[in-house]
Amino acid sequence: MSLIVQKYGGSSVQSAERIKRVAERIVAARKAGNDVVVVVSAMGDTTDELLTLAQAVAPVPPARELDMLLTSGERISNALVAMAISALGAQARSFTGSQAGVITTSAHGKARIIDVTPGRIQAALDDGAIALVAGFQGVSQDTKDITTLGRGGSDTTAVALAAALDADVCEIYTDVDGVFTADPRIVPDAQQLNTISYEEMLEMAASGAKVLMLRCVEYARRYEVPVHVRSSYSDQAGTLVTGTIADQSAKEIAVEQALITGVAHDRSEAKVTVTNVPDHPGVAAKVFRTIADAEIDIDMIVQNISAGMDGRTDITFTLPKADGPRAVSALEARKSEIEFDQVIYNDHVGKVSLIGAGMRSHPGVTATFCEALATADVNIDIISTSEIRISVLVRDTELDNAVRALHTAFDLGGDTEAVVYAGSGI
Amino acid sequence: MSLIVQKYGGSSVQSAERIKRVAERIVAARKAGNDVVVVVSAMGDTTDELLTLAQAVAPVPPARELDMLLTSGERISNALVAMAISALGAQARSFTGSQAGVITTSAHGKARIIDVTPGRIQAALDDGAIALVAGFQGVSQDTKDITTLGRGGSDTTAVALAAALDADVCEIYTDVDGVFTADPRIVPDAQQLNTISYEEMLEMAASGAKVLMLRCVEYARRYEVPVHVRSSYSDQAGTLVTGTIADQSAKEIAVEQALITGVAHDRSEAKVTVTNVPDHPGVAAKVFRTIADAEIDIDMIVQNISAGMDGRTDITFTLPKADGPRAVSALEARKSEIEFDQVIYNDHVGKVSLIGAGMRSHPGVTATFCEALATADVNIDIISTSEIRISVLVRDTELDNAVRALHTAFDLGGDTEAVVYAGSGI
Repeated sequence: MSLIVQKYGGSSVQSAERIKRVAERIVAARKAGNDVVVVVSAMGDTTDELLTLAQAVAPVPPARELDMLLTSGERISNALVAMAISALGAQARSFTGSQAGVITTSAHGKARIIDVTPGRIQAALDDGAIALVAGFQGVSQDTKDITTLGRGGSDTTAVALAAALDADVCEIYTDVDGVFTADPRIVPDAQQLNTISYEEMLEMAASGAKVLMLRCVEYARRYEVPVHVRSSYSDQAGTLVTGTIADQSAKEIAVEQALITGVAHDRSEAKVTVTNVPDHPGVAAKVFRTIADAEIDIDMIVQNISAGMDGRTDITFTLPKADGPRAVSALEARKSEIEFDQVIYNDHVGKVSLIGAGMRSHPGVTATFCEALATADVNIDIISTSEIRISVLVRDTELDNAVRALHTAFDLGGDTEAVVYAGSGI
Repeated sequence: MSLIVQKYGGSSVQSAERIKRVAERIVAARKAGNDVVVVVSAMGDTTDELLTLAQAVAPVPPARELDMLLTSGERISNALVAMAISALGAQARSFTGSQAGVITTSAHGKARIIDVTPGRIQAALDDGAIALVAGFQGVSQDTKDITTLGRGGSDTTAVALAAALDADVCEIYTDVDGVFTADPRIVPDAQQLNTISYEEMLEMAASGAKVLMLRCVEYARRYEVPVHVRSSYSDQAGTLVTGTIADQSAKEIAVEQALITGVAHDRSEAKVTVTNVPDHPGVAAKVFRTIADAEIDIDMIVQNISAGMDGRTDITFTLPKADGPRAVSALEARKSEIEFDQVIYNDHVGKVSLIGAGMRSHPGVTATFCEALATADVNIDIISTSEIRISVLVRDTELDNAVRALHTAFDLGGDTEAVVYAGSGI
């Protein structure tokens, strides 16, 4: 008998009708002989509605109270799913994140899971019941206050529970069929992947693929939880995220084995160039400390090699567009200290990434990569690589062409045209 | 410095605007130098909306899950009030019933408070913050599940907290100005009472007055918590419920002291008559055991003295109209055992009650009572008394006349016409 953790998102439970459909799926899993734990997000737009209500009474709601408020959404949806399951004749019990033993830091709105002690969940399973757990929340170890986990919180809750309960699989039900070789809305012949390694999924997520959040994949990797990303609208198998590339290196990579896994793209970044900084130790540190002090994350970095006799250079980096204006202000405020000429801000850029464990053992991938882009007349602005990923920054208007060019160059397409659901968030 | 507990009902917090008004009132109490604890009900119709949602997914929702669902309402409203208070520059922290230390039995939907251990509330007060506590809920001592307290639960939460914190007063904010000598909608010259003893308020509540629930008054009496019933729409003083009539008996009742406190009425009861039962020991027991087994509460009881030679009599009692049909079925099912002729059911009755501590030391009240009704041509069906109350069952069409007749006969009226708010639940 297996222990399965299932997670359903807000759109899966946005109405009484949808809740009943989800309950049927859950009961079917139980009737197949499995122990079943389910994590449910808040219904539909509940979280946004609660946020609007909060802002109507306070322009800047205190973080602790916002967490108390927002966690009501998951409480409601989980209790309703438990009721729907009972109406089908199966036993179900719902629990808050706190009751489920999700222990977190005290950072309201972006708490991190410290530990999961699912005693009451296990007791419910031992009683033969299906356990529902409110996602996106936990309880602070220090203050005993309720906390929320930030974006991707419900997926992370599900994976964390799966790890703590030593589940056989964590099924993430979503509105896409699985993980694809590229976004099917850009690349019509994108293929669904049967499996993908943790590291490749991490790179996909970090490179713009939205189907799973980075933190959730990282948690799965650390505790070796197989994650099955699948559609809540069908019974088809999705994509299984499992295995580390370390497992693969010992084996010889067969000729038929996919060299490359997929192409991801990201429109959410902007580029900042700090021009004409003195080219000596400590300058880069000042630039990045300034950005770090503003609590902004940096992605790609380029420092041009100083060519001229003047001992000056440019420093370029990318960051989330949402943080762009703040980063520029922070740098301008320290202009005399850093001694730059100007800060150039460009938010008309996009990032395209090629991901694949196979590139480690195949030289020439970078060459093929650049040739494909050149043929498509796409200019490379910045290039950045890891062991299993090549990323470039290009003009945003050329992003789609770049994705398609790479997808074709590495033979990622197939005959089946991908089905794209309305409103799917790939 | 005083410690004040305030309670606001659902209509007081039914919108963002009303929440901000309530927050201003709370902050004013804090600025006046008091420690302030506030219990808030769910916003407006939230509880009913959640119930509707529950019934959409399950015709008979499991009680445990219903409590998980419904308690979200209070969580939402308390967090919002805390936010609104913060926006006014004061500190506030909201707590669930469980976090506030409200420990209950495990009877979902109608849990009773076993104990209140408000450590976190006191800590918040010591930090100078205003504490918000979700009403209508607690945590089961045995199962650690969340429970709801049934009707009047938020008022009871407020009084229970006031008792545990040794508060100076518990202010119940409602949509009427206070407790009146009679329902102002029936008796235009009904007067607002300045104070009323616990026992008289208990009788008023038991006799139909809806401003405070019986259990809440009983809790206040047991722990000697002064309860100030007042309007959430004005700053006028309301009615202070405090003092026991035992305090009064030692004093001589002055001539000017009110003999009678008020007249209550109740349209929610029906009358059941079991006719021609054998007049010997055990028969009444069978009748009342039958009703008790159906979990129905009985109010007034009359057993006619057997007059004839046939050794038969009738047994009559009143009960909530909502339980009438079930009671009749239960009795019919045991007809041969109890050996009655028929069960007569009459739901066109009303109860009117005169309440006053002074009637203990003034004979003649009963006579005046009956004379007043006779003059108003109101026929008395059943009469039932306690030390400080006289109740009669009359034809429902005569109820209003009976109330007015008694109110006048005992000089309860005054010159000021009572203000009646639309939708007030007296």
